[in-house]
Amino acid sequence: VHCVSITSSNPRHKQVQSGGHDTRKIIHCIKVGISLVLVSLLYLLNPLFKQVGENAMWAIMTVVVMFEFSAGATLGKGFNRGLGTIIGGGLGCLAAVFAQSIGIGRVGNSIIIGASVFIFGSVATYLRLVPSIKKRYDYGVMIFMLTFNLVVVSGVRGDVKVWELARERLLNILMGFIVCVCVTLFVFPLWASDELHDSTVSTFLDLANTIQGCFGECTKIVSGKENQPRASFNVCKSVLNSKSKDESLANFAKWEPWHGKFGFSYPWGRYLKIGEVLRELAAFILAAGHCLEASKEPMASLRQSQWVHLETCEAVETKVVYILRELGESMKQMRKCDAKDNIWDQLKNAREDLSLIISTSKMVELEDCQVLAIASFVFLLMEVVGKVEELVKEVEELGDIAGFRTTTTSLSS
Amino acid sequence: VHCVSITSSNPRHKQVQSGGHDTRKIIHCIKVGISLVLVSLLYLLNPLFKQVGENAMWAIMTVVVMFEFSAGATLGKGFNRGLGTIIGGGLGCLAAVFAQSIGIGRVGNSIIIGASVFIFGSVATYLRLVPSIKKRYDYGVMIFMLTFNLVVVSGVRGDVKVWELARERLLNILMGFIVCVCVTLFVFPLWASDELHDSTVSTFLDLANTIQGCFGECTKIVSGKENQPRASFNVCKSVLNSKSKDESLANFAKWEPWHGKFGFSYPWGRYLKIGEVLRELAAFILAAGHCLEASKEPMASLRQSQWVHLETCEAVETKVVYILRELGESMKQMRKCDAKDNIWDQLKNAREDLSLIISTSKMVELEDCQVLAIASFVFLLMEVVGKVEELVKEVEELGDIAGFRTTTTSLSS
Repeated sequence: VHCVSITSSNPRHKQVQSGGHDTRKIIHCIKVGISLVLVSLLYLLNPLFKQVGENAMWAIMTVVVMFEFSAGATLGKGFNRGLGTIIGGGLGCLAAVFAQSIGIGRVGNSIIIGASVFIFGSVATYLRLVPSIKKRYDYGVMIFMLTFNLVVVSGVRGDVKVWELARERLLNILMGFIVCVCVTLFVFPLWASDELHDSTVSTFLDLANTIQGCFGECTKIVSGKENQPRASFNVCKSVLNSKSKDESLANFAKWEPWHGKFGFSYPWGRYLKIGEVLRELAAFILAAGHCLEASKEPMASLRQSQWVHLETCEAVETKVVYILRELGESMKQMRKCDAKDNIWDQLKNAREDLSLIISTSKMVELEDCQVLAIASFVFLLMEVVGKVEELVKEVEELGDIAGFRTTTTSLSS
Repeated sequence: VHCVSITSSNPRHKQVQSGGHDTRKIIHCIKVGISLVLVSLLYLLNPLFKQVGENAMWAIMTVVVMFEFSAGATLGKGFNRGLGTIIGGGLGCLAAVFAQSIGIGRVGNSIIIGASVFIFGSVATYLRLVPSIKKRYDYGVMIFMLTFNLVVVSGVRGDVKVWELARERLLNILMGFIVCVCVTLFVFPLWASDELHDSTVSTFLDLANTIQGCFGECTKIVSGKENQPRASFNVCKSVLNSKSKDESLANFAKWEPWHGKFGFSYPWGRYLKIGEVLRELAAFILAAGHCLEASKEPMASLRQSQWVHLETCEAVETKVVYILRELGESMKQMRKCDAKDNIWDQLKNAREDLSLIISTSKMVELEDCQVLAIASFVFLLMEVVGKVEELVKEVEELGDIAGFRTTTTSLSS
């Protein structure tokens, strides 16, 4: 079943991708500009300014600080800001009232408030250092500290109407929040979930291309052709460093409401798992490429000998690349892999081919270090096949949980 | 020359390290508390409050937002905040004056200001997305946006004294800045440079321990002893993911003034290079461990055979581990490696030992997949030795640039 036909060459693919990314950047910039103008209207329009006055600056501040690239990041920050403001304000008021109700005079009052500032500040700072809190609520805890301090020290001044001030500021923050949320969700929304999904899909395709390049290198040596482009392993290196980016995207994606193809409680954690296996795969591809570099000379000298059956390389290449592309495509279209049985057959074949690629009996003719390099290369390719097997399983499980379609959508012929 | 004697076992080493880290966390929390109390005095003490009034909240905000874990991070954020505020305020005033000087009435004025808010907001947001700016000046650009907007929209209201307001706020931000800087630099300073230095040193020692564990596994199989602890590769995995942390630490370290053993313009970039090689080393160790897992069975069955000279494993282990520890120790003490010639000899020996470890002529007795696993293991160990060679060179270069001492400080006999 040939249902995949992604034959776009690597450079063009990259170009399209980065082009799309640039457009998204410009959309984001324009959206920020629009939000700032909207919120500046609180100052610029007389009737609005008479209502809100100087407090309008809190709305502007909210927009500047809260508006992030993706909808999920913006919503997450907004949630943090809201929660931090409310809890901080509430506790601040309580502390201020408590200090006043004890009634030990101005000095005692100030000492109690100073102590509460110290204690809450230190504890909140400690919370910000706890990894699990830092990951999702760092900003919220910071806003909590800020609000708590502002409210509790304002409380010591009887002449300032704390409640009124708090209410007005909260209202203005709310206005900034609403502007942000509306613009982020309704004007060309940029979803972190789309980005995570697309980057995972394109990792599949990029790694497939790298393997093609790496094996191409191998067949080039065998066939003596030198016109193929050199394999580039930069993709592998960037995949290896993708962990933190993936994690933050998954984090943001969880904040995003139902949209497009992703329902509520979509299993984003699974994407992180798949990303982990992809990173391991990239590490093996990189190591295999390294071996190839070291075994180039022996291989070249052995071009004519029958010691290593390098012709089978092409067969294995085709299989692994086909499977990776099929997996990527099935994720892209969110359909279950219809060529499932086919894929397992191919994997089995690839394993068998690889185990036959080397014949120990002819090894004796070689020098030790040559044996090592070539044997390692083949061993690492086996590991690559093993990781691809793991990926097939992971994608299948994702398909089961996320409810991928089972109907076949034939792309080509 | 046996000048290294770090024999502390891994768990205890970890404990001490994390104990030190916890102490640092608590110091940081207390410092934040102290800064907040100091800055709250602007509200709490009557004479001060009469001077600054409500604007004291800008000082509190500065402390909450600016106080970071390390001195370098705090200084960097303070610099960003200062620069952003001044440029944003200046440009905001210019834009406001420009809009007023054209004199096309209130509506035209508002339109010009709205347009400038949109343009500056969009351009600044675009700058924040440029990787090189995002890395060091993200916060500064955000503060620029904030200040510009606040100033330019306040300018449209003739009744608000913009200049006076700006001056007072700037003064308060300055006060917050001074409090932060004094507390961060003079009360138990926590240096990002120390953290980067220590984490690089401990990576050397951790990887040495992992290799010891990994080879220990190997000799255990050979000798049949089962009482040694299983090798753990978690260290390698955490080293692999250390890139972004190292980069931000190096970034902060550049902000830190002369202190302790690090002079001005200390070559922190070199640490990133060493970190890169350490990550590659960790990847090879991980792959070697993986091979070992796969080759355990054949190795066990071959315990008595002479096919693989596994006894030499211990010799190689001792050498590589010794060199890694020597390098780590020389960095820790910031002295040049006095056992340099010795190290190069050891490396050469290790390479020779490894090339003799396998005898091709006996390979024929084995099954193909066993050959592959064992050959790969030996090949990867060679790569490990190669990476250690690279490390020796990198550390030497660092020593030359950073001016490490050349005198020998003998630790043990």
